[in-house]
Amino acid sequence: MIVYGRNVAKEILRNGKKVNKIMMQKDFSDKEIISLIEKNNLKYQILDKNDFRRFDKYSHQGIILDIEDFVYSDIDEMMNDENSVIVILDHLEDPHNLGAIIRTCEAAGINGIIIPKDRSVGVNSTVMKTSAGALENVKISMVTNLLQAINTLKKNGFWIVGTDMDDSIDYRKIDYSGKIGLVIGSEGNGMSKSVHDSCDFIAQIPMYGKINSLNASVAAGIMIYEVIRLKR
Amino acid sequence: MIVYGRNVAKEILRNGKKVNKIMMQKDFSDKEIISLIEKNNLKYQILDKNDFRRFDKYSHQGIILDIEDFVYSDIDEMMNDENSVIVILDHLEDPHNLGAIIRTCEAAGINGIIIPKDRSVGVNSTVMKTSAGALENVKISMVTNLLQAINTLKKNGFWIVGTDMDDSIDYRKIDYSGKIGLVIGSEGNGMSKSVHDSCDFIAQIPMYGKINSLNASVAAGIMIYEVIRLKR
Repeated sequence: MIVYGRNVAKEILRNGKKVNKIMMQKDFSDKEIISLIEKNNLKYQILDKNDFRRFDKYSHQGIILDIEDFVYSDIDEMMNDENSVIVILDHLEDPHNLGAIIRTCEAAGINGIIIPKDRSVGVNSTVMKTSAGALENVKISMVTNLLQAINTLKKNGFWIVGTDMDDSIDYRKIDYSGKIGLVIGSEGNGMSKSVHDSCDFIAQIPMYGKINSLNASVAAGIMIYEVIRLKR
Repeated sequence: MIVYGRNVAKEILRNGKKVNKIMMQKDFSDKEIISLIEKNNLKYQILDKNDFRRFDKYSHQGIILDIEDFVYSDIDEMMNDENSVIVILDHLEDPHNLGAIIRTCEAAGINGIIIPKDRSVGVNSTVMKTSAGALENVKISMVTNLLQAINTLKKNGFWIVGTDMDDSIDYRKIDYSGKIGLVIGSEGNGMSKSVHDSCDFIAQIPMYGKINSLNASVAAGIMIYEVIRLKR
């Protein structure tokens, strides 16, 4: 996985994560990063501005790292406690939203996140950057079939709570005790029909304006903190 | 103000907002937009791919509009009801965060947003895009002096609630009845010292992970919905 930028570079080098390759622009001069690279005995390549130009679509700040891909977890690893909360993302598309949700899950002590393999953003460099270090402490499972994963949770005693405007009840009136699987819909389309139908409850965040939808990571934040409200 | 992209263009053209100039890439073919332009009798300029290249830092999708700048409001227009909630942004930097917060404020029926003039993101095209149409229905005031604005709110019977980890109480334990001014700190540094000191209460969103901070728009969303929890 290619990652870039000074903050991400520092975080990776500080945590001693495995780095395959480092490329720096000729005038790169961040002393902390350079000393971390030397301390870790890592090799690096220096490229002049012209050769670095092909990375200009990233806000790289003169440093690019090629690191090991993110290691996904199994659902089994997330279900172990009686107050487990698992967040299920139904085909999210925007890496900034995924990054912000990972950060919220880490802060709220969520047990894990489930994302689908197809038609969904996965853990990439933008997600890594937006999650601001939280990625290291959150379990994420990538599944082929979201419905099957929801059924696995149900068989293990989870209540599945979706978020939608239709057929829904006020999110403040739902009992979130026990194990909860919280489904967040995609940016454009919300939850898919089949996922909607598999939910035990549909929660609605009341809206009083004309627009009637929140940013997906904001909606997730409000719901996640509501679910843990009486748990922690 | 320069704005770009098909969704924003549609919204502006549908709402009959004043447009100074429209530029389209030669192969632009969105029928709805073209018919809206013709319906509104607007002039447009067609540029070939090479001439359009200077806009490539924007995700313009082949269409750029120059529209009237956003019209800011006075604080006086926001304070008129006994349950007023005003959101004060203490030097936010990221336009995506501002856009998402505007969207949350619109959904939650917030009376207005106050932002400082200097060292802060203002309403630009990215904000417009991220706010997903909410900008039209939210009052925003841009002030020279944030502390002075806070004092104006106080004189008008507002309680000022900040968000921070220090000297704070659990956000669920604060009484938000009456008029509330809610301060959200900046992405990197939180609230400034002087703003922190001017708050009547400091609310803390409890965090159980290692990272200890939420994305600013997520934190704002959780706080805004907590403030209106018993109001609406």
